[in-house]
Amino acid sequence: MTPLRFFASITKESIAEVENRLEPSTKHGADIRFHGAVRDLEDDREISGIDYSFYEGMALNELNRIGEAMTAEYPDHLAFVHHKVGFVAAGEASIIIRVQTAHSAEGFEISREYLARIKKTVPIWKKPIFA
Amino acid sequence: MTPLRFFASITKESIAEVENRLEPSTKHGADIRFHGAVRDLEDDREISGIDYSFYEGMALNELNRIGEAMTAEYPDHLAFVHHKVGFVAAGEASIIIRVQTAHSAEGFEISREYLARIKKTVPIWKKPIFA
Repeated sequence: MTPLRFFASITKESIAEVENRLEPSTKHGADIRFHGAVRDLEDDREISGIDYSFYEGMALNELNRIGEAMTAEYPDHLAFVHHKVGFVAAGEASIIIRVQTAHSAEGFEISREYLARIKKTVPIWKKPIFA
Repeated sequence: MTPLRFFASITKESIAEVENRLEPSTKHGADIRFHGAVRDLEDDREISGIDYSFYEGMALNELNRIGEAMTAEYPDHLAFVHHKVGFVAAGEASIIIRVQTAHSAEGFEISREYLARIKKTVPIWKKPIFA
């Protein structure tokens, strides 16, 4: 069975929960997982976490549009993106971007590129919760 | 408590086991985990996995030497490296390189650099097990 080349989700599930369900691959030697974690400071003030909200109709569409464009530009990779929404505590990850490629150099390049595009256009908003 | 800046291990434990014990950080927004997975082909022949052996006195020393040099060159990161030795099945990871930084760009750069240095000088050998 050919795995899906790109899959994205935006839910209240934690990164740890979804990561435990990721399948390995016997075809891809490089499996790069970027976790974006919530830090405990926002503008030098301590926070307990961040409350993430999203534009429901748009955010997942935009992630899928990025996935389609990336798959056209870099045909030989698999990618998975999950963003947790709702409250994410400091120290916890709000996003995982997983990229699988045959070799590592392109895997790092593709991972960076996903992150840059997602930050730029996906409508997810952050509200810091001060401690 | 200040976490160790660099920690490495080489044992028969799987990447999944050691990854479950990793601590999060509230100071580092980027947490990049490179998994090097075993593919199911070696020179176009199908394999069931790879048997890894290592030069016991040298391999961990060399990893720690790389960690010290990297810490001197890039002071603001934490890193953890684990290599599994013994039999690693196709589809399973044999190595994890985890790098934590405040921001993602340097995290990707540091991750690539660890991988390049480890591949170059750490005395770990691969014996493919044909299916």
